[in-house]
Amino acid sequence: MDLSLIVAGLPSTTPFTPPEVIERQRGGQFAVRLGANESSFGASPLAFQAIQDALGSIQNYVDGTHYELKEALVDHLGCAEDNLVIGPGIDGLLGQIARVLLNPGDKVVTSLGGYPTMEYAVIGVGGELVKVSYLQNGPDLEGLAAMAREVDAKIVYLANPDNPSGAWQSQEALSAFIDSIPSHVAIIIDEAYAEFAPSIPSASKWLHDPRVIRLRTFSKVYGMAGMRVAYALGHPDTVGPLNRIRMHFEVNILAYYAAIASLKDQPHAQWVAEETRKGREEYRSLAGELGLTALPTETNFVAIDVGGSDRAKELIALLGDRGIFIRMPWAAPLNRCIRVSVGLPEERMLFADAMRDIARL
Amino acid sequence: MDLSLIVAGLPSTTPFTPPEVIERQRGGQFAVRLGANESSFGASPLAFQAIQDALGSIQNYVDGTHYELKEALVDHLGCAEDNLVIGPGIDGLLGQIARVLLNPGDKVVTSLGGYPTMEYAVIGVGGELVKVSYLQNGPDLEGLAAMAREVDAKIVYLANPDNPSGAWQSQEALSAFIDSIPSHVAIIIDEAYAEFAPSIPSASKWLHDPRVIRLRTFSKVYGMAGMRVAYALGHPDTVGPLNRIRMHFEVNILAYYAAIASLKDQPHAQWVAEETRKGREEYRSLAGELGLTALPTETNFVAIDVGGSDRAKELIALLGDRGIFIRMPWAAPLNRCIRVSVGLPEERMLFADAMRDIARL
Repeated sequence: MDLSLIVAGLPSTTPFTPPEVIERQRGGQFAVRLGANESSFGASPLAFQAIQDALGSIQNYVDGTHYELKEALVDHLGCAEDNLVIGPGIDGLLGQIARVLLNPGDKVVTSLGGYPTMEYAVIGVGGELVKVSYLQNGPDLEGLAAMAREVDAKIVYLANPDNPSGAWQSQEALSAFIDSIPSHVAIIIDEAYAEFAPSIPSASKWLHDPRVIRLRTFSKVYGMAGMRVAYALGHPDTVGPLNRIRMHFEVNILAYYAAIASLKDQPHAQWVAEETRKGREEYRSLAGELGLTALPTETNFVAIDVGGSDRAKELIALLGDRGIFIRMPWAAPLNRCIRVSVGLPEERMLFADAMRDIARL
Repeated sequence: MDLSLIVAGLPSTTPFTPPEVIERQRGGQFAVRLGANESSFGASPLAFQAIQDALGSIQNYVDGTHYELKEALVDHLGCAEDNLVIGPGIDGLLGQIARVLLNPGDKVVTSLGGYPTMEYAVIGVGGELVKVSYLQNGPDLEGLAAMAREVDAKIVYLANPDNPSGAWQSQEALSAFIDSIPSHVAIIIDEAYAEFAPSIPSASKWLHDPRVIRLRTFSKVYGMAGMRVAYALGHPDTVGPLNRIRMHFEVNILAYYAAIASLKDQPHAQWVAEETRKGREEYRSLAGELGLTALPTETNFVAIDVGGSDRAKELIALLGDRGIFIRMPWAAPLNRCIRVSVGLPEERMLFADAMRDIARL
């Protein structure tokens, strides 16, 4: 069959190699899984209860309007219902946004070495990526804005806090960034890790601005990466059109009810964020002890500067030999780092013990 | 923000109004839900056990290669691993197939009044729908094939068994249909209801033919419509490119393990199919008792000819007043029917009692 012009020109790539593929190659499961920024602290007990309560409904399609989840989000965020669109993870929403905003050839500005699924979504609709190198420790906001103007971009993408650096932009820095972007450029702010940051700009902060689309997920602080629920928050004129192409019944019904329940357990989310902060401090101390530097982070992971990409690759392989899965940023200048998710205390101890052995070799 | 040319031209439609929307309008839940061809018989106990066993993993992303589910399907179907792509429901796969095969303006031939999500997927990528009216009781295979030739279609879509008629095509009829389609036209056979049919062409039957894509789901006989897992079965050259654009981690992790477990419980699936046959017979008898005709069906629902679309609408409203949710085909000639899913014996009894009251008014 002749493929569509866009898909015929695409390589067979995947944004990430799943750890399960590495496990099958090495012939055994990892004992410690700290490479995908998943939450070792797990979901709220209320979410698990909601799953149990909804088991009798798995033969039914979900309410494709997501009415109850939107109501819970309206309560939680103080926005209106039409500022929200629910989707199957931020990945799913990025794919939908690319389709809604991009014509083939339209340019999208992002950081070189930033979130690969965003890039995958853009090339999947024939968009063109224009990449701006990271600064030493995080995204180059001025560089991204300048490039957006220079290439007449349709979209500029920024993760805040950022993955894989962990860097966080204050509301002031973000406002200045947004002000510096031309009025016809959409600004996607990927807030997957927002709940770990010291403070988040209020949900209403940019709702008046049709350029700004903020993305939030139940994958990280709410501990449900495998469940696939996230939401887009923005002006109705911008997020509303996602309803024209999204598959209405695609959110899993257990995920749907678990997300509603999770929102009602903010103490759990706060506990996860607090435990995560402790873990980040532990990693920072460990890095210091080993003569290394941890990059500033406000996420559930830490990038540790190990002095170069060859050394980073070597450490990842040595950790892998010990059953510990982590990853590294793939592009300079961040590829001088390894990136390790904050796990449970015992997982962090296993990582620390291994690092003490191998980082001193 | 300027929308993409394709999305700017789209209406704000949804393929289906969810029953929950009707429930909120009428101010109360339906007591009996027989309008969405969901399985009242539920999923396999093995699937529920798999969900319990996987609860400790919901904070993790699924294995995006779907290795274990593909292995289970290879065992079950006797195909090769590269004949399969897993997706979030047939809806999700239809969206992916539309993107992989269609350029804007490409024509897709389908039945007028057939599965609306297929149409939604096609217009969502700028494809053009060309519709062929149903025969009295099911799809017009000769008409579909003739139209595919006449308009130089890129895709022809056929559901077998069909929704909303319930009609089933034998392997001979299907082979003749496929032989009559030009060599450059993709043939999507939506087999969502295949496990209810008296016999299904073997998985290997058309694997040599890159035109044929068959779609199967865990939504119907396996009782997991809310979980969102399905698969495309076909030639590697045709299904393989779905891997270039699918979102790799979009299948829910509980759905993934539940699907693997479901495949291992074929006795449950066979029991559901058998109970469904009994329910169809009950509906057929009921129709006869009321002086109506049930269309031939090999699915988990029955279309009952009530003599006209006004009468069908009236009956649906009257059933709704009694807390019973059903639907009807929207296009002639099938819109002379109501369509009712096979429910549990007690649900069928409530439907029958209500029909005896209102269909004799």
